[in-house]
Amino acid sequence: MSSSTSRLATLWALGVIAFGTATSVAAQSAPLSAQDSDPRIMGWMQGFPPPPDKLIMQPDADYFSFPKLRWSVCHLREFLPTEEISRGTGAPVPLDYLPHAAFATTAREIDTLTFMPMTGGKAMTWEESLFANYTDGMLILHKGRVVYERYLGCLQEDGKHAIMSMTKSITGLLAQILVAEGALDDTLRVRDLIPEIGDGAFATATVRQVMDMTTGLKYSEDYSDPNADIWLYSRAASPLPKAEGYTGPDGYWAYLQQVRPAGRHGDAFHYKTINSDMLGWIISRVTGKAVTELASERLWRPMGAEQDAYQTVDGKGVPFAGGGVTAGLRDLGRLGLLMLNGGEINGKRLFPAAVVEKIRAGDDRSKFSGFPTIPNGSYTSQWWVFHNEHGAYAARGVHGQTIYVDPKAQMVLVRLASFPRAQNGLIDPTSLPAYQAVAEYLMRQH
Amino acid sequence: MSSSTSRLATLWALGVIAFGTATSVAAQSAPLSAQDSDPRIMGWMQGFPPPPDKLIMQPDADYFSFPKLRWSVCHLREFLPTEEISRGTGAPVPLDYLPHAAFATTAREIDTLTFMPMTGGKAMTWEESLFANYTDGMLILHKGRVVYERYLGCLQEDGKHAIMSMTKSITGLLAQILVAEGALDDTLRVRDLIPEIGDGAFATATVRQVMDMTTGLKYSEDYSDPNADIWLYSRAASPLPKAEGYTGPDGYWAYLQQVRPAGRHGDAFHYKTINSDMLGWIISRVTGKAVTELASERLWRPMGAEQDAYQTVDGKGVPFAGGGVTAGLRDLGRLGLLMLNGGEINGKRLFPAAVVEKIRAGDDRSKFSGFPTIPNGSYTSQWWVFHNEHGAYAARGVHGQTIYVDPKAQMVLVRLASFPRAQNGLIDPTSLPAYQAVAEYLMRQH
Repeated sequence: MSSSTSRLATLWALGVIAFGTATSVAAQSAPLSAQDSDPRIMGWMQGFPPPPDKLIMQPDADYFSFPKLRWSVCHLREFLPTEEISRGTGAPVPLDYLPHAAFATTAREIDTLTFMPMTGGKAMTWEESLFANYTDGMLILHKGRVVYERYLGCLQEDGKHAIMSMTKSITGLLAQILVAEGALDDTLRVRDLIPEIGDGAFATATVRQVMDMTTGLKYSEDYSDPNADIWLYSRAASPLPKAEGYTGPDGYWAYLQQVRPAGRHGDAFHYKTINSDMLGWIISRVTGKAVTELASERLWRPMGAEQDAYQTVDGKGVPFAGGGVTAGLRDLGRLGLLMLNGGEINGKRLFPAAVVEKIRAGDDRSKFSGFPTIPNGSYTSQWWVFHNEHGAYAARGVHGQTIYVDPKAQMVLVRLASFPRAQNGLIDPTSLPAYQAVAEYLMRQH
Repeated sequence: MSSSTSRLATLWALGVIAFGTATSVAAQSAPLSAQDSDPRIMGWMQGFPPPPDKLIMQPDADYFSFPKLRWSVCHLREFLPTEEISRGTGAPVPLDYLPHAAFATTAREIDTLTFMPMTGGKAMTWEESLFANYTDGMLILHKGRVVYERYLGCLQEDGKHAIMSMTKSITGLLAQILVAEGALDDTLRVRDLIPEIGDGAFATATVRQVMDMTTGLKYSEDYSDPNADIWLYSRAASPLPKAEGYTGPDGYWAYLQQVRPAGRHGDAFHYKTINSDMLGWIISRVTGKAVTELASERLWRPMGAEQDAYQTVDGKGVPFAGGGVTAGLRDLGRLGLLMLNGGEINGKRLFPAAVVEKIRAGDDRSKFSGFPTIPNGSYTSQWWVFHNEHGAYAARGVHGQTIYVDPKAQMVLVRLASFPRAQNGLIDPTSLPAYQAVAEYLMRQH
């Protein structure tokens, strides 16, 4: 592995580039197909011990290079320190399912649905799209009931999968809940809440600008430049002991303090993960709780989750609010239901309806550009809003993970995936139209 | 922190010295009392961020020096890579409790029970013993019902605690189950099952000798000797990237291959953690499963656990079978019930009654010496057997953790603790007589 690939892999490993345009060298040539790169086929970590060429290890974060990442997305805690998002100790609340016969029929019908990829070419079936997108888990709920569920690759129903930048949407949801409840004033400037931000770029941004990523921050992601900010961030965030003589910032929050300005706050949407970490800090300052603890209290426990989730941490125990969460497929389905139903699940209200109303409405679309597969989109409270006819909005992770909420179809779709390239622009063309096709099918059926 | 203390702390951190005589420098002088060293009083990790002097971090494993360890025993996963021991996704089976009024009365009466410490002096109350022993959690079950439950220090009912060498007893129980079921022949030599052990000392030991720790192994634990085996083991086991130029064994299993003989197999009990890791390897070879997966399948899932447990891993993902488990208090109570009831819990049989019969019977006592607080003891299948009038046996961890099973009193007692020194010889004098006093009280009551 070349040194730059290794550096890149380190970033992936740390979850720092849970977004963007990074690609592995292997992926730049012809990547193995989903079927051929299935970790069970590859034989990763099979045997006691596995043969040396089937071993996936930590150093240089080689474990997050394709095709190894197809195994590692289900095993992140085995490489990195993590903090629990507890579901509590009681009984989970089971999801409702279609009756067995109807469920099987629906699964067959969905698998054979066809759609046209955004890139044109020939029609693709739903089932083909699962493989085209290196899907590891797919759960579809319609009117509150599971109508489709499938596990592939490294994932099983009692397993968990890295959700990467979908983490941002959990962070943003928690912040939006605090705003709706009056515990967080999103018109305040960051320095009003966190004086230690000093004269850094974040100081004069409002909480809302951080939530919507309309801050003006100098933060380069030029992977070919060894002094790019993304590398400094990576080194700061690593939970591994710092190299001898390292004098840079230690941890997410220390990094945030020295970010310099570029452009004007509020002008435009710039997708920069450091906003999510700033938001995590704001949430913790306001609530006196780690984002893991708050996610447990406000979401995982009351929604009846069946598995704990977890979140990677930096060397000071700060959870990675911009990309660190790993969770179970069905629990992400519960989170989607909670969004679809405006804060209610299992007959309980967990937060004000205004929270989802605000997110669904999206942000000013004129601030949004640079995402050709989301032509009319906006980004608010760390959620992607499509502004399409169905009013859909989503949490999105960089290897194709999503919670996709379609209010018109009353559909929640959760996908976990390990697409070889960290680039949703390559995944959307065979995903977003497929979701639309399922939504339309469901509207016809029930 | 001195270099040797730092090295020592590294070992603790890795869980490698989940046994033995290691003490921290702080503990060698007058350690803070349990009340004064309570992590909530010390203020560890409070604030976002915590003040620098309240921060507990990974480097040099400073986090496992007293008094920081009193916080860290509940947070090990935040420092180290870990693997899950899944409880599955269904509903836990709640423990039975005494009715509320009887429970409260019993708690009051147990708290005021008095006993004479082994070391003589004046009588101590049960409640005083909780603090004398830096107890973090105490659960007592009598005839299958919880009669006493208390959380102190870093532990809460939905929290988890490092059990260190109690891990060995889980490993040993799994092995004994395999033996009883005919899946593992304990008369075989290690080399018959694991040819890669080559001509190492383990090659000619029988599985039974490994299970009972009567192997003859060269393995020194002289902490003042930088070339002592314990340091080599520590470096091999560390999940952190190896230092530049490191050429030693990488991982638990690679270490085991180069252990040299000393003395004769079968002659005497020598408490050496490497036996437990050898047993873990044997279990995985025979079953094709990691010990975490097997513990989930055979224990955590079927016993109705309410929390997942987890286990630290080496750099190759091998769980630390000799000391790596962290678990919830009540789930350890379930494990104790399973032992007390000879393999049954919640009306289900999880393994043959012969498993516990074998463990309860203990090993040849003439092979056992060097543990003044367990004068008539023996060690078999990685469990401590007291050979006392009550027929008690136990899993034991080095900071005072225990599952103590008293068949005569039909009592299961689980203690989680963070005693400043890693030395059960200092903890037993105010623990074992206290357990006996509670057992006698319970036999009088119900």
